[in-house]
Amino acid sequence: MATLSDISVSASINSLSAFLFLVAFAILRLQPMNDRVYFPKWYLKGIRENPSTSGPLVKHFVNLDVRMYLRLLNWVPAALKMPEPELIDHAGLDSAVYIRIYLLGLKIFVPIALLAFGVLLPVNYTGGNFSIMSLNMKDITFGEIDKFSISNVPPASKRLAAHIIMAYFFTFWTCYMLYKEYKIVTDMRLNFLASQKRRPDQFTVIVRNVPSDPDESVSEHVEHFFRVNHPGQYLTHKVVYNANKLAKMVDKKKDLKNRLSYYTNKFERRPNKRPTTKTGFWGLWGKKVDAINYYDEEIDKLIKEEKAERERVIGDPEAVVPAAFVSFRSRWGAAVCAQTQQTRNPTRWLTAWAPEPRDVYWNNLAIPFVELSVRKLVMAAALFGLIFSFMIPIAIVQTLANIESIEKVLPFLKPIIEKGPAKSFIQGYLPGIVLKIFLLILPMILMQMSKMEGHFAVSDLEARSAAKYHLFLLVNVFLGSIVTGTALEQLKEFLNKSATEIPRIVGVSVPMKATFFITYIMVDGWAGVAAEVLRVVPLILYHLKNLLLVKTEKDRDEAMDPGSLLWPITEPRLQLYFLLGLVYSTVTPILLPFIIIFFAFGYLIFRHQIINVYNQKYESAASFWPDVNRRIIIGLIISQLSLLGLLSTKKAANSTPVLVVLPILTFWFHKFCQNRFESAFRKFPLQDAMIKDTLERATEPQLDLKDYLKDAYTHPVFKGGEVALMDIDEEVDEHHLVATKRKTSRKGSQAGTSEGSPEDRTGIYAV
Amino acid sequence: MATLSDISVSASINSLSAFLFLVAFAILRLQPMNDRVYFPKWYLKGIRENPSTSGPLVKHFVNLDVRMYLRLLNWVPAALKMPEPELIDHAGLDSAVYIRIYLLGLKIFVPIALLAFGVLLPVNYTGGNFSIMSLNMKDITFGEIDKFSISNVPPASKRLAAHIIMAYFFTFWTCYMLYKEYKIVTDMRLNFLASQKRRPDQFTVIVRNVPSDPDESVSEHVEHFFRVNHPGQYLTHKVVYNANKLAKMVDKKKDLKNRLSYYTNKFERRPNKRPTTKTGFWGLWGKKVDAINYYDEEIDKLIKEEKAERERVIGDPEAVVPAAFVSFRSRWGAAVCAQTQQTRNPTRWLTAWAPEPRDVYWNNLAIPFVELSVRKLVMAAALFGLIFSFMIPIAIVQTLANIESIEKVLPFLKPIIEKGPAKSFIQGYLPGIVLKIFLLILPMILMQMSKMEGHFAVSDLEARSAAKYHLFLLVNVFLGSIVTGTALEQLKEFLNKSATEIPRIVGVSVPMKATFFITYIMVDGWAGVAAEVLRVVPLILYHLKNLLLVKTEKDRDEAMDPGSLLWPITEPRLQLYFLLGLVYSTVTPILLPFIIIFFAFGYLIFRHQIINVYNQKYESAASFWPDVNRRIIIGLIISQLSLLGLLSTKKAANSTPVLVVLPILTFWFHKFCQNRFESAFRKFPLQDAMIKDTLERATEPQLDLKDYLKDAYTHPVFKGGEVALMDIDEEVDEHHLVATKRKTSRKGSQAGTSEGSPEDRTGIYAV
Repeated sequence: MATLSDISVSASINSLSAFLFLVAFAILRLQPMNDRVYFPKWYLKGIRENPSTSGPLVKHFVNLDVRMYLRLLNWVPAALKMPEPELIDHAGLDSAVYIRIYLLGLKIFVPIALLAFGVLLPVNYTGGNFSIMSLNMKDITFGEIDKFSISNVPPASKRLAAHIIMAYFFTFWTCYMLYKEYKIVTDMRLNFLASQKRRPDQFTVIVRNVPSDPDESVSEHVEHFFRVNHPGQYLTHKVVYNANKLAKMVDKKKDLKNRLSYYTNKFERRPNKRPTTKTGFWGLWGKKVDAINYYDEEIDKLIKEEKAERERVIGDPEAVVPAAFVSFRSRWGAAVCAQTQQTRNPTRWLTAWAPEPRDVYWNNLAIPFVELSVRKLVMAAALFGLIFSFMIPIAIVQTLANIESIEKVLPFLKPIIEKGPAKSFIQGYLPGIVLKIFLLILPMILMQMSKMEGHFAVSDLEARSAAKYHLFLLVNVFLGSIVTGTALEQLKEFLNKSATEIPRIVGVSVPMKATFFITYIMVDGWAGVAAEVLRVVPLILYHLKNLLLVKTEKDRDEAMDPGSLLWPITEPRLQLYFLLGLVYSTVTPILLPFIIIFFAFGYLIFRHQIINVYNQKYESAASFWPDVNRRIIIGLIISQLSLLGLLSTKKAANSTPVLVVLPILTFWFHKFCQNRFESAFRKFPLQDAMIKDTLERATEPQLDLKDYLKDAYTHPVFKGGEVALMDIDEEVDEHHLVATKRKTSRKGSQAGTSEGSPEDRTGIYAV
Repeated sequence: MATLSDISVSASINSLSAFLFLVAFAILRLQPMNDRVYFPKWYLKGIRENPSTSGPLVKHFVNLDVRMYLRLLNWVPAALKMPEPELIDHAGLDSAVYIRIYLLGLKIFVPIALLAFGVLLPVNYTGGNFSIMSLNMKDITFGEIDKFSISNVPPASKRLAAHIIMAYFFTFWTCYMLYKEYKIVTDMRLNFLASQKRRPDQFTVIVRNVPSDPDESVSEHVEHFFRVNHPGQYLTHKVVYNANKLAKMVDKKKDLKNRLSYYTNKFERRPNKRPTTKTGFWGLWGKKVDAINYYDEEIDKLIKEEKAERERVIGDPEAVVPAAFVSFRSRWGAAVCAQTQQTRNPTRWLTAWAPEPRDVYWNNLAIPFVELSVRKLVMAAALFGLIFSFMIPIAIVQTLANIESIEKVLPFLKPIIEKGPAKSFIQGYLPGIVLKIFLLILPMILMQMSKMEGHFAVSDLEARSAAKYHLFLLVNVFLGSIVTGTALEQLKEFLNKSATEIPRIVGVSVPMKATFFITYIMVDGWAGVAAEVLRVVPLILYHLKNLLLVKTEKDRDEAMDPGSLLWPITEPRLQLYFLLGLVYSTVTPILLPFIIIFFAFGYLIFRHQIINVYNQKYESAASFWPDVNRRIIIGLIISQLSLLGLLSTKKAANSTPVLVVLPILTFWFHKFCQNRFESAFRKFPLQDAMIKDTLERATEPQLDLKDYLKDAYTHPVFKGGEVALMDIDEEVDEHHLVATKRKTSRKGSQAGTSEGSPEDRTGIYAV
């Protein structure tokens, strides 16, 4: 086990790397050539434009203004300055609520840490379990840090009452904060929805599993069904074509166009030599041809194929999938249809709110109900396999944490790794970073699995991926580290144990793994968050694209990759910190400050990123909050059960009935939250729909809704645009607005005053 | 522990008592004077009338036709003969589906028993664990019955694989049968709903938690809200008055009237002496007065008070509770309103389908949301207390089962109880019957608790009571018997055990308690069901009332108490048999035949009772089935966990991962059933509503719906009728129909032919 000095080494390494990342960021962000990497959000909003072209050429790329470098940290107050309502306006509600999770972490853990340090630390430290044994046993099992943990309290001690009382207090405090936050987020969501402008999804419902009819096409069937069952409300509908093949062609065309412009650029720079390429895979082998001509021809060929396919899809009734977007005359009609059951068979004519057009995941609209539930079962089994086959590599990694094991397996390494810094590095840094690499490739697999499950909205896909990732982190990082980390050979034995033994085993191991998790928090939390702000990968990619592909301003816009929050990865990770904080709050409170630093640092960094960088792909109006709330409650219950398991081995058996009450109460709290708040995230109240409808009829009596909705739910490939760009192009309203703004607020980023419009004013936050 | 001979004694006693009950029933039911006790359903239907008054007087009371007595069992084929569609027509869907639960028990357990007897019994019997020890240890711990149970298989034996494989088979078979049954019941429900006649609740929604408005009364507020938010659909509404005090007065008046008619009858029989009574409590003390005059005056006084109260309630705006019944122009409008959320605050304007008028529980309509959730928490805590304070008396009762304990405590009893039959009686019969008495008073308490929880439909109240009772039986009868039954002194130790140990303790004790549960099945199941058919209490009460109160035919109608199914008691008990069957199917399969006999016998008896006796208070169209399905699944999961616990002590640790899969799969099956079927029980599809609406508009264009709904949801006390009689009077349509039928089918019970209307034909089943 690691000692306190190991932890200090690790803390220094991680703080240093975090600091270096921040310094690098502070310098890089000032260079005009990186402007589009660090402030893409403002470019997308049309407020920021390319740095002025006056002055010497070098000024385009490097910032020579020395005074700027003196204010290395001036982005910090800028990131914190923007008030929340403007943040919502600027970046959307999802982002604004996302950073509230970090704030919630602080609200929960700062008071808990203060109390734990005031009460539990003295109780533990004077517990005296190791005061006698520590001399000879220290090197075998426990490190110094255990003096501050519950391990230092001898079995059957009266002192354990303090931990039980604290467990109650921590539970009530956490629930209280969760309740308050749920209430706030619910209000934010409802106000946000109420103030939204007209959007196609407000009028539209998605209907799936349209039963086939021998006499009618899908389109006729849908129209008749809704005309009959929603008379007076039905307006129009849009059938869904299976255009997956066509979408692939469009993607391929885009790729070919990129290659063409690469070679065109190359030729323009060196006009004396026509670039060549090979026709085979990735241009690596095959016949050597003139690149520009070759890709020109390929593109022409593809355009013809694409045209044929486009005609086939539209003409072929087989290409129509049994799903449709049905639009209503009013929001009220759509709200009614989305919330009611249409027929007696709950597997047919399934209606739900249509996702935003840019949120639709088109490939999955055609899956029938039975296949869906089979897919879900198969994916659940696959997830189970994935989670439990990952156990093995993780367990191997964890043995690295145990320096004694390495010496036993590879004795010749002993002289090297026994040296102070090397030993500390291996014990403090390596296990965390290897685990991290494992976890990097995982989210893509999980997203793919979610797609297989058949959800039809990107937001759903992300929510499901997040749920899977959360489960994975729970089992493999938390449970896996705790149980197998103690010793690899325990794994097999553990599998043979009765299922009822697990909480006890977990409870016992928890205090022993405190140092590992402290290291993990520093590597994954501190340094990881600092790396996020530096945006190394987008930085390199942007400059590469700029060098090879960019010709026009439009190309440069496309080369810019603002990225987004990556909800399915970041949220479950955040949950891991909540879990760790809650589990260790009663056991080893010394871990809490590390968590608090993580939350504070993350809040700062992500607030900055949201303001300046990320461009969310869709807006779900914080519909993820019930998941966040539920997962924190899961963490709370796990912390209670592990304490229960731990105390049952401390010969404090009387405590079991007292502690069993806690998870029950917590579960009741969960149910209460569900009843009180969740419907605000799942349903759309009729009164609000009616108010918006009435208002609209009064202000815009001439509105031709049918025309407005005409192309909203057309598959992106039929709009003639590029698939990948649809995310941005789709925001017709917003774009339009921005285009007119551009003229008035060209210097918005410098000249913003408090009298300006919100868009103007937001300029001042992007220093 | 009981031996096989104890069980045979118990089986004989119980079979005999069951047989005696049946003989008594067979004789009593033939007596004309008991006709209204054993065939009240037919009287209520108007098909059966008083026995003809010709012939000697004695024939009115006693059946002298000897031939009838020779066919003692001719009610059995009669009970089985009525086909299901007619049964639904005759007794309602709830009853028809209820007896399907017994059938489901047979469908599940007969194949399981066959397989268990074919495979597990030989495996266990030749296991040989006790073949050596049985000589000296038999009298201490195990009885002969254990030779057929898993206890006879030695630890770590390969034979245990048979039990695991069987556990898999039993699980899949049970789930398959559950799925099939769920599908059938769903179809039955939907067809039943589709074929129903026009009823007020089809057009009506109940809205609760109407927010108070300073400018408007509740009635105005409701009208404005629904006029605005359901334009074109809103028809009318009915506010709810807090008439609880008035209802009490009406009840009291009825009681006084009963007393008056008692004394009037008395006076008529002995005209020479005016009856007297005392004015105090129950006429036991106080001033002596002339009874008839006294009650005449009291009734007059009460009528005046009642009138004043009636006027106060209608006039006083404070007497209006913030709830209302809102009726719509169409079923479609009601379906929309019931299924949607009205406002952004999910605690206000809560809408739900209105229960049938006779199903409304008026007292609870006024409770606000926050109070509701507090009430629920308080009742949950009370239920917890109730369940765990009941542990103690049950544990005391259970020690009675252990004859050795009695001898230890009361050594002087030894010579008496050591005698063969006495010992068998004590061991085999007593524990079951004492437990039974405990359980008799419980349902009333639970119903009272459900009322406190604030449900507003009688069907909900019954469902919630059933849920509580189910939990109670699970903890106290099942777990309580298993754990504390082994030895009372283990109870305290058990409470101090870690929560994780419980499945193991349960698993180990399960095989030891097989004999106890066999006895329990015979007492509660066999004899209990037989006692049900005899209807001792209603029999006595009817004759008492007949003697004291009845003057007119209407009085006789009122004296008749058909009773109803008592869903909140019978269903959870049934579930206990499912649980026992599933738990013991792998452990001690010898218990299964007792379960099968119970289900078969219960099916027969309850089918008879439903046809001839019970008059259901309301019709929920089998809305309870999701509960039934869920509880059988809970039983299945408990059986899997207890097997898991048992095998983990049998040194068959490798089996744990294999067996852990089962509860997971079972849970997935539960979720699948929910998705596939449950909405048919909770929602009302718009298409069906639209079809019925359209049909009605076509066939009855002149229908004045407002007039039809006018008084449907008036509090019964405002209808001038008696509260208690509302249950029957409310069935206006049916009654009306029956009244016209009466003339045509006076001799329906004898002359029914297959060409007759359904009502006519049902006559032939009441022999």
